[in-house]
Amino acid sequence: MAAVAADLEQFLASAQSRIHDELNDFLRIPSVSARSEHTPDVRRAAEWVAAQCTAIGLTTSEVIDTPGHPIVLAEWRNAPGKPTVLIYGHYDVQPPEPLELWTSPAFEPTVRDGKLFARGSVDDKGQLFLHLKALEAHLASRGTLPVNVIVLAEGEEEVGSENLASFIAAHVGRLQCDAVVISDSTMFAPGQPSILSSLRGLAYFEIRVRGPQSDLHSGMYGGAVVNPAMELARILATLHHMDGRIAIPGFYDDVKPFPDAVREQMRGLPFDEEHFRAEVGSPALGGEYGYTVLERLWTRPTCEVNGLLSGYTGEGAKTVLPAHAMAKVSCRLVPDQDPAVIENLMDEHVQSVVSAGVTVEVEHLHGGKPWRAELSGPIFDAARRALLAAFGKEPVITGEGGSIPVVGDFQRLLDVPVLLVGFGLPGENAHAPDEWISIENFEVGMRAMAALWDELAAT
Amino acid sequence: MAAVAADLEQFLASAQSRIHDELNDFLRIPSVSARSEHTPDVRRAAEWVAAQCTAIGLTTSEVIDTPGHPIVLAEWRNAPGKPTVLIYGHYDVQPPEPLELWTSPAFEPTVRDGKLFARGSVDDKGQLFLHLKALEAHLASRGTLPVNVIVLAEGEEEVGSENLASFIAAHVGRLQCDAVVISDSTMFAPGQPSILSSLRGLAYFEIRVRGPQSDLHSGMYGGAVVNPAMELARILATLHHMDGRIAIPGFYDDVKPFPDAVREQMRGLPFDEEHFRAEVGSPALGGEYGYTVLERLWTRPTCEVNGLLSGYTGEGAKTVLPAHAMAKVSCRLVPDQDPAVIENLMDEHVQSVVSAGVTVEVEHLHGGKPWRAELSGPIFDAARRALLAAFGKEPVITGEGGSIPVVGDFQRLLDVPVLLVGFGLPGENAHAPDEWISIENFEVGMRAMAALWDELAAT
Repeated sequence: MAAVAADLEQFLASAQSRIHDELNDFLRIPSVSARSEHTPDVRRAAEWVAAQCTAIGLTTSEVIDTPGHPIVLAEWRNAPGKPTVLIYGHYDVQPPEPLELWTSPAFEPTVRDGKLFARGSVDDKGQLFLHLKALEAHLASRGTLPVNVIVLAEGEEEVGSENLASFIAAHVGRLQCDAVVISDSTMFAPGQPSILSSLRGLAYFEIRVRGPQSDLHSGMYGGAVVNPAMELARILATLHHMDGRIAIPGFYDDVKPFPDAVREQMRGLPFDEEHFRAEVGSPALGGEYGYTVLERLWTRPTCEVNGLLSGYTGEGAKTVLPAHAMAKVSCRLVPDQDPAVIENLMDEHVQSVVSAGVTVEVEHLHGGKPWRAELSGPIFDAARRALLAAFGKEPVITGEGGSIPVVGDFQRLLDVPVLLVGFGLPGENAHAPDEWISIENFEVGMRAMAALWDELAAT
Repeated sequence: MAAVAADLEQFLASAQSRIHDELNDFLRIPSVSARSEHTPDVRRAAEWVAAQCTAIGLTTSEVIDTPGHPIVLAEWRNAPGKPTVLIYGHYDVQPPEPLELWTSPAFEPTVRDGKLFARGSVDDKGQLFLHLKALEAHLASRGTLPVNVIVLAEGEEEVGSENLASFIAAHVGRLQCDAVVISDSTMFAPGQPSILSSLRGLAYFEIRVRGPQSDLHSGMYGGAVVNPAMELARILATLHHMDGRIAIPGFYDDVKPFPDAVREQMRGLPFDEEHFRAEVGSPALGGEYGYTVLERLWTRPTCEVNGLLSGYTGEGAKTVLPAHAMAKVSCRLVPDQDPAVIENLMDEHVQSVVSAGVTVEVEHLHGGKPWRAELSGPIFDAARRALLAAFGKEPVITGEGGSIPVVGDFQRLLDVPVLLVGFGLPGENAHAPDEWISIENFEVGMRAMAALWDELAAT
């Protein structure tokens, strides 16, 4: 078994306290990209990342404006003849609400039971930051890196990475590399390093139903005026068949089955469905008939309601017939579904089922294509060795139900393999209150990523 | 044609400016009974009404505490041998939200185009207040009233009159009377006085669906964890058949058809469905198959969604699988449906259709029984004459889709007829932004109610 180089290990052990202080500083910035009132905080986080890139010894470091939130681009290219890797991460975070469900404040990093709790701790500030510290380990110990490095950090991942694809397309020459490496995912289990073989895509919609021109008294008008909230419920109820399949005509037309080898490997993973159920706390699991839980999560598309709002929702009772009703609805997509196609199918379906007594509008808020990895070549071989060296265990191949739309963009625009190697864990509460990262995973993750560059250079 | 007595007319004309100033003072008090932060304002409104009762010359006037908001009780009993009438009204108002849709602030009374805009202007502060001023017209002009009067004003009508029935039951002797008179309804059309023959009852529910123990990432968990917002939509979609009938088993079992005479009179009313549709602003009307719009509104039960809330409802997109979802749902009831029976049917139905992947709770927030008037006897005959005198037009008999649960309580507990004679108008925006009362109706309504006591005493 390989081991992480002693000088890198030595550096990371001796700098541990400072590294954690820096991480806490990063997590304290409420860089909520979805909320316009946090725009200055998002920029502050970008500037913090750029300053870190300079501090650890990268050669150049810039905060580059986009029509949305800025992109941080930093480079170190002093290893001629060696591979060039692009490390991607995001410094923006999900909204922290509902605030009252956080045990400690969302933007005040707090350690409990070996976990560091904060919004962004695992998604993705903590995982972006461990890459920076892995690079620092090399530069501080040896004054050099074994490979050429580009760091690209964006601030719009949680709102659909709207400006990243065009940025990549506009800078294809500068971003040319041999592999892209991203840590924004979870390990299969504690101590079990994992390489991701697939990501689901996303098509996110807001469905708005409008009826009467203003809210009405439900007694004086109820029974003759079509109720937009009821119509919205009816629309949403048409999205699935009783067996859990999605009922939007044409929805499955472009779904391509996963390779048998990947499905067999997934079915071989030790996964306890009852443990999973107990962890999420639902009285029973559900989903599409004929698939295991892991297949439902990793290999099958979904259609979920993410939010509902209509009428009176406060304390007590208000007898209102609401003028409008809104749902946020999103579909997770699998190869080869295309968000633009799904957008048309969703709109056609919704318009076809709605009553004449209301109007309905389907707005496509954002989308991202699904992705599957190659799973072979120098970066994957190097990753397997580095993970074995750091964790003492061979990595497994997993799927992931979430979406990182930019992964497909990198592969398409730069035409290079993308390695997804993450250090989150199941139950980490990404996108929910009490988000956390395992402190052990953060520590071992830094070592694994430091080792990765040695392994890749030795290929 | 009878006329309103000259001395009463003279008084109301000369005091007009002061009367409107007083009404504006009353409307400025934000007595929102549904919101605990307005509890002091609700009490202030009660004290304002009690002080008015004293000021106009009633003999006694009290603010009486209840487990909820207080009841105002005032009396004048110096007409021995004459009938005793109980005038009921409510001084609490609906929540004003959404505030941004008010043309002028909800609690700053403003006149535009012959309409007085304010929350409570028509429902019910304006209509309660016109009764007080009708009494004042007698007492100020003549030093006496032609009948004995009890004024009972409550502060919980908009939250279900939870403490009124027990108050009436505990004070049956003191509240004994020959008729109850209530102005909390609308006229069929401008210039067309109306007597209400029926009210729908109400059963108001909050349905809460719970799934996972916390909000989850919709990518990482979506497809295997049952989504409470989707389940809520499915539950709501099962409440109706496609023809608009309510699909809750047993829901219609106790519905008693309206008398043919009442239905014929209602079908004879000049009602323009297209005008009604244009007024509410919906692209088309809807409702139960086989009934006219007025029949749907006045004689048939309904089931409406009054509010929806789940997951993320803010700006942008959040990929959350929500832990819970809530709907406010209310049924309007017709004779002889009973809210307690409907509560059981609703709960049984919802529990029978829900997925095993969530739990659902149906809370019955409040209810009221439906009601039908006798339409004969001294108080109805007097009302017909008084309305003719004040409006110059015979009243029509109408129905009303709304609920005033206490009407049934009065009839049951005091065993006396209840006269519902209201001065609102279609489109008045009760329970919605820009609520208004016609200033002409307020003026003529005061005269009609002043004339009513002369007519009743002369019976």
